Amino acid sequence: MTAPLPATTILKLDRQGSRLYATIADPSTRNAMTAALVEDLWAVLNATENDRSLRTLILQGADGAFCAGADLKGTNKALDSAPGAGEVDPLEAQNRAGGELFAKLNEHPLAVIAVVDGPAFGGGFGMACCADIVLATPRARFALSETGLGIPPAQIAPYVVGRIGLRMARRLGLAGTRLDGAQAQDIGLVDFYCETADSLEATLTKVLNDIGRCAPGANAVTKRLFLSVGSLSPAAYRDEAARAFAGCLRGEEGQEGVRAFAEKRPARWVEKI
Amino acid sequence: MTAPLPATTILKLDRQGSRLYATIADPSTRNAMTAALVEDLWAVLNATENDRSLRTLILQGADGAFCAGADLKGTNKALDSAPGAGEVDPLEAQNRAGGELFAKLNEHPLAVIAVVDGPAFGGGFGMACCADIVLATPRARFALSETGLGIPPAQIAPYVVGRIGLRMARRLGLAGTRLDGAQAQDIGLVDFYCETADSLEATLTKVLNDIGRCAPGANAVTKRLFLSVGSLSPAAYRDEAARAFAGCLRGEEGQEGVRAFAEKRPARWVEKI
Amino acid sequence: MTAPLPATTILKLDRQGSRLYATIADPSTRNAMTAALVEDLWAVLNATENDRSLRTLILQGADGAFCAGADLKGTNKALDSAPGAGEVDPLEAQNRAGGELFAKLNEHPLAVIAVVDGPAFGGGFGMACCADIVLATPRARFALSETGLGIPPAQIAPYVVGRIGLRMARRLGLAGTRLDGAQAQDIGLVDFYCETADSLEATLTKVLNDIGRCAPGANAVTKRLFLSVGSLSPAAYRDEAARAFAGCLRGEEGQEGVRAFAEKRPARWVEKI
Repeated sequence: MTAPLPATTILKLDRQGSRLYATIADPSTRNAMTAALVEDLWAVLNATENDRSLRTLILQGADGAFCAGADLKGTNKALDSAPGAGEVDPLEAQNRAGGELFAKLNEHPLAVIAVVDGPAFGGGFGMACCADIVLATPRARFALSETGLGIPPAQIAPYVVGRIGLRMARRLGLAGTRLDGAQAQDIGLVDFYCETADSLEATLTKVLNDIGRCAPGANAVTKRLFLSVGSLSPAAYRDEAARAFAGCLRGEEGQEGVRAFAEKRPARWVEKI
Repeated sequence: MTAPLPATTILKLDRQGSRLYATIADPSTRNAMTAALVEDLWAVLNATENDRSLRTLILQGADGAFCAGADLKGTNKALDSAPGAGEVDPLEAQNRAGGELFAKLNEHPLAVIAVVDGPAFGGGFGMACCADIVLATPRARFALSETGLGIPPAQIAPYVVGRIGLRMARRLGLAGTRLDGAQAQDIGLVDFYCETADSLEATLTKVLNDIGRCAPGANAVTKRLFLSVGSLSPAAYRDEAARAFAGCLRGEEGQEGVRAFAEKRPARWVEKI
Repeated sequence: MTAPLPATTILKLDRQGSRLYATIADPSTRNAMTAALVEDLWAVLNATENDRSLRTLILQGADGAFCAGADLKGTNKALDSAPGAGEVDPLEAQNRAGGELFAKLNEHPLAVIAVVDGPAFGGGFGMACCADIVLATPRARFALSETGLGIPPAQIAPYVVGRIGLRMARRLGLAGTRLDGAQAQDIGLVDFYCETADSLEATLTKVLNDIGRCAPGANAVTKRLFLSVGSLSPAAYRDEAARAFAGCLRGEEGQEGVRAFAEKRPARWVEKI
């Protein structure tokens, strides 16, 4: 089923076939993680998670920023209100909710591509780490900037470690080192550093066409299985994987895929842009 | 003890001293994971797992293929027979058994070297990921080809993630990207890309001689300990590691190793080809 | 509070502002992990763990060695005394205690920088893997040398796998391959390979100044959170992270950091050498 897209304020949505472009457009904050952006992201992720007519979510930022991280003005306001006795600190609750958003993005059934064309700091760095594939331009800048502000990169840590590994997370987290797109590619944070607008477009097209040869449902199952490795025991994983495999193979995609292979023709789902 | 080698049909076995060469030779399927190959692999892995006169298992494919992945003809046949009510789906059972084979290969006490000289797709990609060291030639091709067939790379996922990390698994799994040997080396799937037959032979000899300086029993224990990191609590791991360490040091190899070091001579187990 | 430094014999301590240089100086053993070194390391790590006037521990070795690994003379002596019936093997107890030291170093709240200017074998390799950032010179040599002695790299395995990943641990562990500093940088064991004394000094200064922009308390919390990823369930991690985040933000550093950012001035904790 094709889901209707939600109304959003900060996140500009543009659906093109199986691709959903979501562009953070909030120049006054350099695309910071404001409450409005968080709300928009939840709305889009919820609206699309069961829509297999979509294959990819392309997350990017307008005006030469990806996402500058925490909304410090909003944070300042929250700091003013200390929690009463026995109350949960609203800062704590807000931070925890942020962690749930990163988890939602990380586990989203669509293939998520982040195109970073400007600063990706703090939570912006975290969102890039939740993507499946990251592209960057010469304007890209990456930093775990939190400790420079006296706070830890707390909710994004699992996704940072998941993408760049514990060793690099420790280095970048404790030194706050700023990386450009080429350096970020060297350390495995970025998959494809693209020096020009042309190479960015060509690389994105190639990635989308690669994804376009893969069955959308099988891709969603694959992502779920990959993310469950390590959280299930080996035996439980094998059970889960076998059920998923048999379900896919007996399903519409599996039947079509095997038939197409035998008939030496492209499967029906193949999409080329 | 030196174990007798099993009778096999698809897997050609050649024992040379402490090295067991196992060559998949099934040109009609491009070395697909047929039921016959699966049976042969089980037989060899079982027969050799307690044989410390062996150090290495060199897994390779004949005729310019490593292993082309699932046996789609066999799968097609299995698809015809839907499970009855209350029955376990035979496709599910077969897939789960495949997962046990990958685990067996991954955890095998011998040092496993994969030499990839042709396609390593799907399950073939998975077998390469279960090896300790992977060599590749200019004919090598790697792809997580499953999603192009409408199915997930289900049982191999833990070994793919274990070898190339979650980030690269997500990229290759969702885009089905095909890599040659040099590209596979760049992303850490291949340890040594060898451009010529001579460099392949020289590299393999060097690796075997490096392994030949290591005590076979200590190597088996080391591999077991490395693979248990992350599945035991830190305290339980330390207990296990301490028992293993003291056992090795008080054992024949440890005594000989420490003595040889003090006497500035090679240990008795050292083997050079 | 500024903690007094303990009296040590093997480990030479030099405090310079927020930096503690700890130099292993035991030329007769090439800085092996003798009982005396182990005792000194415990003393230093314990004395400094709650001292937030320190930011970094720089661990290095004198006289062209980092740490040559196990103290085989000490081990030989221990081998002579077999445990009585019902007694714990002293070799096992000693090995397990070593594992606790590696854990202590790995989890130490300071940013730990290892400067490797000579052999880092066995336990020395392990200590380097416990550091947050590793620098190496042309004299650096790295090897998991244990299996060449008939024993496994048992207690260091979690930190080796944590730093260089399972794949590289398997390769280096089972083949005992020796790496120089440049090769160690290629495989991700070393962060910065420095060819000259000048480049070593410049790199170290840059790293220390990067760390000097980060809040010491936030850094300690960050390191703790990064290391807990994977050992907590996602929900428990989010709880823990939210508490840590709110605590930091409401604390002295967080208040100062947010204010300094708003006032476009450096935070009070910033330190430049």
